[in-house]
Amino acid sequence: MCQYQRMQAYPHGEVVIVVDCEDLDRAADFWTEVLGYSRDGEPSERYLSLLPASEHGPDVLLQKVPERKSGKNRLHLDLRTRDLGREVERAVGLGAVRLSTEPLLEGGWLWHVLADPDGNEFCVLQPPATYWT
Amino acid sequence: MCQYQRMQAYPHGEVVIVVDCEDLDRAADFWTEVLGYSRDGEPSERYLSLLPASEHGPDVLLQKVPERKSGKNRLHLDLRTRDLGREVERAVGLGAVRLSTEPLLEGGWLWHVLADPDGNEFCVLQPPATYWT
Repeated sequence: MCQYQRMQAYPHGEVVIVVDCEDLDRAADFWTEVLGYSRDGEPSERYLSLLPASEHGPDVLLQKVPERKSGKNRLHLDLRTRDLGREVERAVGLGAVRLSTEPLLEGGWLWHVLADPDGNEFCVLQPPATYWT
Repeated sequence: MCQYQRMQAYPHGEVVIVVDCEDLDRAADFWTEVLGYSRDGEPSERYLSLLPASEHGPDVLLQKVPERKSGKNRLHLDLRTRDLGREVERAVGLGAVRLSTEPLLEGGWLWHVLADPDGNEFCVLQPPATYWT
């Protein structure tokens, strides 16, 4: 389970993103596919770790909680990609719900707001072409 | 601003953690110190990017929002460290509020729940010693 040999951005240890969900398997199916992560073994009663394919990037810890989502998430993930339409379509095909009907535009950035199967918002964004150069 | 040359865990682009806050400067002061990150230039009206010291680890995007926090965060950060007491003390010294009076213990993991200056919960955890080996 130890990932400490992986390089970490946080000098005092590891940073992990914890995501609340109702069903660990359902959330794991969704987020492993969206992020290209893999499961770290079997879920415990309350937790399941998802690991990135390489040593780069944070672990995601799925946490089963009894309460449903209410209100807007105060932390969320942004997925920056080169082809907004394709990535949104891929996420929706995996079970995401698109919350924005039209793409949002600000400063050359174009994005959609989506929700995971638990209603947690995340964004898929297409930065300006100059971003990638 | 482009960080694409950095290695990324997400095969379709970049994953960024977005954190809602009331005051970009206050949140940046806090999270740069806690995570060892640095500011990516000056804040815009609504956004400020924080970058890890190395190419490993996700960017954090602070997002100014009008609403105050209500309810528990559905996504939060876990900071796994070797010395719980020292890291909690450091975070509190930087402006965190400790929400748990006594450390929580589960499966050999010991942790405290804290809140950033905007009330967003995060955890500081000390895994079992075997975790780091």
